Amino acid sequence: MEKTFHLNDILGLPDRFRRNLLNGIHGYKGAFLIGTKNINGYSNLAIFSQVIHIGANPPLVGVLFRPDSVERHTLENIRQTGEFSLNHVHSGIYKQAHQTSARYEMNQSEFIECGFKEEFIEPYKAPFVAECKIKCMLQFVEEHLFSINNTRLIIGKISLLRLPEDILSEDGFPSVEKADSVASCGLDSYFTGHKLGRLSYAKPGIEPHVFD
Amino acid sequence: MEKTFHLNDILGLPDRFRRNLLNGIHGYKGAFLIGTKNINGYSNLAIFSQVIHIGANPPLVGVLFRPDSVERHTLENIRQTGEFSLNHVHSGIYKQAHQTSARYEMNQSEFIECGFKEEFIEPYKAPFVAECKIKCMLQFVEEHLFSINNTRLIIGKISLLRLPEDILSEDGFPSVEKADSVASCGLDSYFTGHKLGRLSYAKPGIEPHVFD
Repeated sequence: MEKTFHLNDILGLPDRFRRNLLNGIHGYKGAFLIGTKNINGYSNLAIFSQVIHIGANPPLVGVLFRPDSVERHTLENIRQTGEFSLNHVHSGIYKQAHQTSARYEMNQSEFIECGFKEEFIEPYKAPFVAECKIKCMLQFVEEHLFSINNTRLIIGKISLLRLPEDILSEDGFPSVEKADSVASCGLDSYFTGHKLGRLSYAKPGIEPHVFD
Repeated sequence: MEKTFHLNDILGLPDRFRRNLLNGIHGYKGAFLIGTKNINGYSNLAIFSQVIHIGANPPLVGVLFRPDSVERHTLENIRQTGEFSLNHVHSGIYKQAHQTSARYEMNQSEFIECGFKEEFIEPYKAPFVAECKIKCMLQFVEEHLFSINNTRLIIGKISLLRLPEDILSEDGFPSVEKADSVASCGLDSYFTGHKLGRLSYAKPGIEPHVFD
């Protein structure tokens, strides 16, 4: 049996049901911890899943920020310092990572409250998460406001990328499965990924095959 | 052993290596087939993974388009008709779904070339993918140009959502694992997801627990 929701049905749903449904139907997403520092030296750490690849050359990443949420400390810090770190959540730390979404005060560090260790790589001031295996440092480039619901996309340029050597294949593909990165779905679900396959470059008239 | 890439290292990488690396480090993403029709009635189907949740009320979805790619047919059709369908790729069709990224001509339908069946739901003109279990119809709302690399984000409003009743939990969360939706990573990798858990709403001082 299928269930169909028209726009009016969706708008009429109880808030929590609608939030779970609409966040969930976007399927799997990455799960990332974003580390920042404000100009007074306070560290902040928050979990994000709305992260998109904007480009490879130059290397650009987009992060979506919702209005009036716990994410605002992160956004304020990026505006103040122009810097943020992006760290892959793996299955060993997914509960602590989820806990960073609690509403801590500006002077409470989620690193301490949720049990993570700060790691610094010169010359950057924003903290990385020592427990994470795949991590990037990003420099603020652009901010776009989507006026329809006041969300904002922050675009950053990758200035440093660090990852375990043994997850990197010869052609540059990093195995997020070997790195044990998790996928998230909706607001509260976490998953490990199991490879179906890497597929050959698609050309008209030729069936794609699994090469790895 | 860890490997570190600074910005200059990234910029100096061979194109293919850089593309694989930079696309891959965004971790897991959803995999979606977007169905459109142009004003002359030709159908188009293309695989996308850069899809983000913009909001639940109103229900808004963002799709990122790269410049000068095979995705351009989809973008042109959305501009012409204001309509597109978003269909979850599942493990039974992931190879055919990947095949839609081949460079077919405007008058070739990927539905026919890649072996999918068109499905129409009144009053919408854009085709759904009959083989997919989770599907949405979207109406064009906004287009944003990111001038730094000429990518574009198209924001659409969900006018219809259809999914199997038995994947929907009481609180509205749709189990993409039960629906067998796949995750993608980079340009060519596909994965199934295995649930670690749904975690309780995070509150300061209280450890999150798995409730499902």
